[in-house]
Amino acid sequence: MIESLLAGTQAAEARPKTTRGPLYEAAELGFRPYWYPALLSRHLGTKPQAIKMLGENLVFIRAGGRAHALHDMCAHRGMPLSHGTCLTEGTITCAYHGWTYDVSDGRCVAALTDGPESPVPGKKGTGVQSYPVAERNGIIFVYMGSGTPPPLEDDVPDEVLRPDWTIQTVVSVWRGNWRAAVENGYDAGHASYVHRNSLRWRTAMSLQPAWSNVKESQVVGPYLRSGDGKPGKSEEIYPVVGRWPRHSWLRRKLAEFGRKPEHRRPFGNQFHLPCIIHNRYFYYAHIRWAVPVDANTTRNFQVFAGPYQGARAKAFKAHYWLWHRWVFHMMFNGQDEAIISKLDYSAPERLYRPDRSIVDLRKYIETHVRTEDGARPERTADDLAEILG
Amino acid sequence: MIESLLAGTQAAEARPKTTRGPLYEAAELGFRPYWYPALLSRHLGTKPQAIKMLGENLVFIRAGGRAHALHDMCAHRGMPLSHGTCLTEGTITCAYHGWTYDVSDGRCVAALTDGPESPVPGKKGTGVQSYPVAERNGIIFVYMGSGTPPPLEDDVPDEVLRPDWTIQTVVSVWRGNWRAAVENGYDAGHASYVHRNSLRWRTAMSLQPAWSNVKESQVVGPYLRSGDGKPGKSEEIYPVVGRWPRHSWLRRKLAEFGRKPEHRRPFGNQFHLPCIIHNRYFYYAHIRWAVPVDANTTRNFQVFAGPYQGARAKAFKAHYWLWHRWVFHMMFNGQDEAIISKLDYSAPERLYRPDRSIVDLRKYIETHVRTEDGARPERTADDLAEILG
Amino acid sequence: MIESLLAGTQAAEARPKTTRGPLYEAAELGFRPYWYPALLSRHLGTKPQAIKMLGENLVFIRAGGRAHALHDMCAHRGMPLSHGTCLTEGTITCAYHGWTYDVSDGRCVAALTDGPESPVPGKKGTGVQSYPVAERNGIIFVYMGSGTPPPLEDDVPDEVLRPDWTIQTVVSVWRGNWRAAVENGYDAGHASYVHRNSLRWRTAMSLQPAWSNVKESQVVGPYLRSGDGKPGKSEEIYPVVGRWPRHSWLRRKLAEFGRKPEHRRPFGNQFHLPCIIHNRYFYYAHIRWAVPVDANTTRNFQVFAGPYQGARAKAFKAHYWLWHRWVFHMMFNGQDEAIISKLDYSAPERLYRPDRSIVDLRKYIETHVRTEDGARPERTADDLAEILG
Repeated sequence: MIESLLAGTQAAEARPKTTRGPLYEAAELGFRPYWYPALLSRHLGTKPQAIKMLGENLVFIRAGGRAHALHDMCAHRGMPLSHGTCLTEGTITCAYHGWTYDVSDGRCVAALTDGPESPVPGKKGTGVQSYPVAERNGIIFVYMGSGTPPPLEDDVPDEVLRPDWTIQTVVSVWRGNWRAAVENGYDAGHASYVHRNSLRWRTAMSLQPAWSNVKESQVVGPYLRSGDGKPGKSEEIYPVVGRWPRHSWLRRKLAEFGRKPEHRRPFGNQFHLPCIIHNRYFYYAHIRWAVPVDANTTRNFQVFAGPYQGARAKAFKAHYWLWHRWVFHMMFNGQDEAIISKLDYSAPERLYRPDRSIVDLRKYIETHVRTEDGARPERTADDLAEILG
Repeated sequence: MIESLLAGTQAAEARPKTTRGPLYEAAELGFRPYWYPALLSRHLGTKPQAIKMLGENLVFIRAGGRAHALHDMCAHRGMPLSHGTCLTEGTITCAYHGWTYDVSDGRCVAALTDGPESPVPGKKGTGVQSYPVAERNGIIFVYMGSGTPPPLEDDVPDEVLRPDWTIQTVVSVWRGNWRAAVENGYDAGHASYVHRNSLRWRTAMSLQPAWSNVKESQVVGPYLRSGDGKPGKSEEIYPVVGRWPRHSWLRRKLAEFGRKPEHRRPFGNQFHLPCIIHNRYFYYAHIRWAVPVDANTTRNFQVFAGPYQGARAKAFKAHYWLWHRWVFHMMFNGQDEAIISKLDYSAPERLYRPDRSIVDLRKYIETHVRTEDGARPERTADDLAEILG
Repeated sequence: MIESLLAGTQAAEARPKTTRGPLYEAAELGFRPYWYPALLSRHLGTKPQAIKMLGENLVFIRAGGRAHALHDMCAHRGMPLSHGTCLTEGTITCAYHGWTYDVSDGRCVAALTDGPESPVPGKKGTGVQSYPVAERNGIIFVYMGSGTPPPLEDDVPDEVLRPDWTIQTVVSVWRGNWRAAVENGYDAGHASYVHRNSLRWRTAMSLQPAWSNVKESQVVGPYLRSGDGKPGKSEEIYPVVGRWPRHSWLRRKLAEFGRKPEHRRPFGNQFHLPCIIHNRYFYYAHIRWAVPVDANTTRNFQVFAGPYQGARAKAFKAHYWLWHRWVFHMMFNGQDEAIISKLDYSAPERLYRPDRSIVDLRKYIETHVRTEDGARPERTADDLAEILG
């Protein structure tokens, strides 16, 4: 019975069950040939750190000031290298039999328990996979694709890499697949409902619209930018439900005092491959990576970036620690986490007009994502009109 | 080796491995086209309550004094509605994008974040399944079958619904499949062993028989009634084991003083579809539903019912809270739970004479259970004689 | 990418992925036709004890001073017998319906709730599997194979059974498959790395070699004995890593004072089927069974045995409790457990010269293990030369 009802969410048999294209549908563990943030610089020393990402166990270690990443499994018997130690700078030694690897390329350089003349280092199959690592502005990035990695600049938003900008970062782990976390960030529909009572908006001295018209997304350089249309009023009268939202007297007065237009959003949400939500405000930017850990876990890297140096950078940091970190990076995103952790991402979907943003996002990913071999399946996400029909 | 031994529990290859017929064998999550108790009236207000039953997540909510039940998943993106809120009486609004449903029929009446003119409410596939609900005597019942539900009276014992009776109810959750919980309640064999030291029997001023002859069950109206035969003595001499049970001097003296016949049980256990154990005593009745939650969990609704009104009802309630609730609904049933939670219900079985009750029960269910389409498989449970052979 | 790299650990397609032969590869839950230690005599009384081993649930009970073992599931409805009780010495009665079994052979002797004349005891398929049990020197052994068990002496090292020896035993549970635990005990390579800082070696007044040459194992009676070759120095200079290990000044001085040769190990590690590591020292022996519990759990029986009686046995016991139990049976083996519990035993392997011991062990098991029917697959572990190539 339930099954027949749910089948009813699809108007016809021919309609696809999802607007996710085949590449995106298969990417439960993310897209490999991209740079991803792995951990913060201040969290890595010469002690090995185990980090799981894209479904694979990695071990990070610092040597000579540089960060390195290896597949976290000794080639010999399957012991995680993250339980090993650094005997000499630039190496990691497995806890079981003392196989020792060069952290820069994963080459086996010694097998201690086989003596100094051991033939192991020269042999095939005795190394572990190493991954290219880059460290910029306090964030350690790793590239887990095959072949030569692209320039870091291709995969990381400008604001994070520019030396004349200051960034502040917080890392948090969400239950839920990374795609649910990314779609939520680009989703034009949820904001006016999920975040309506966030402290950020409560104190904004403006009233958010109850809803917004959503226009087609636009490709703008490396970004897909959501097309916000004309906003609705800050309060509306709905059938059955009646007036909503019902703002408090104080909030309305503050909004009058603020004399801001009802909807004041200069730039739309932006998406950047592989998993980045980018929001530009007047003077600063908020950037979030939803990095796949495993099929049901996502590690969020949230960056607050501003074009400041010197004393102004200090003021910017103070602003971040006193206000933005708690109100935005914790409370506001906590509202999203509360949703994503409960969502059944594999459930049948019945999309509506604001999901134009989601459908555009899925199409963009399907048609623009980098693949290891450049190949791309012929079938892509179906027409918007049909989906939202 | 074990396998061959266990195979030996079946005397011949032709013998079925179980006396469960195909309908019953498949009903790991219960039989859908029946009224089931879901929760107590006093536990439901306007805050949504998530209740899992028959393997499906439901959300209950009260509106205008009436209880309602919906499938607990928003049609839009798979968010559980039980995390939603009631903005206007009679509706529930999803926590993610504000899709709002009429709780009485599951129809989508508004999609807040799509504005007052949203086309969503008028479209196909935007509703969620609703289920018929009835509320009687402090218990909320739900019907999860398809089509028109039968009268509540068909599925609920008389004593629970009569206005001239008083009922008291306790709800508890057991580990174990609902069928193990139901069979245990109808099982003629276990009582004199499992419950031999229950406080109820210790204080009964009578000695229970060590065993009983079990006769064929009888269909009596909507019930299957177990056929208790001639009871054994209160103590017997067994081969190898010797005398059993060995009652204390005090217990024997009390029994003499009580001058009750050794076995005093006016009515047999009764079973009522879909999952009800019904015990009638002289003046009152004890009724228990073993409601399937999931394959390994059962929610027991235990009802203590007496034909009382007014002052006598108050005395009846006092009796319940001071004695029956603790001694019977908790201790006595706790003994059953201790068994069911450890039992391997899928283990091979080697039945014996008292299991005539179990076999009769399984046959009755197989041949009398209501099916969605009225169809019934040809093969039913095998002959009693052969099973117990 | 990872897959292709790992595939590279095999030099050619033709090379087997493991040096485990088919019998050993299939023996995730151990080899059944052997005597295994199950529990200590002092842990078993007339109260039933549930013990899982070789993937099967057993119940042990003592009757008339003798230990007995049964498959832990009542033949009637699948209730674990370990929740039952002993009403009469020599029997166990199921907690559900009072089916009572003779603990010596698993025969059903009474079905209490079916009366003294119950036909159950005489019928086929009403018993449970019993297993031969032997109790020697404080350890209870069980044989879970089919057919007649071999003499206990075939499967248990001499020192454990001799009346003129004294033994002390400790039981501990490790995470990890039993094969990883056995191989670790026979492994010639790990000792000088994993145990280099154990208290036992720190106080030995000698320096262990950094590595050892490993020669071919020898079959010596019922044992496979590892072939230790010429040891390396106590400190070596390695490529890249440099000097290792770097012993403290105190440790070197103690070693000079001790004037012991650098490597003083009179006997190699020995393996005894089915899962025994046997180490002989000058006056005593250390014996460890890695008994399979389930695929990921191992129960270790560690025995410290010395040829002592009377007052010398008391001194031996004191030595054990004051020193050996803590330093060797707990700390030293705790180092091994820390490894085994983190190892991925199913990972691809890239063996090296010291793994000659592992390969010899696997070959020995594959070609010498007792099978239920005496049959043995044709293919055995491949040539050592090729494996280590």
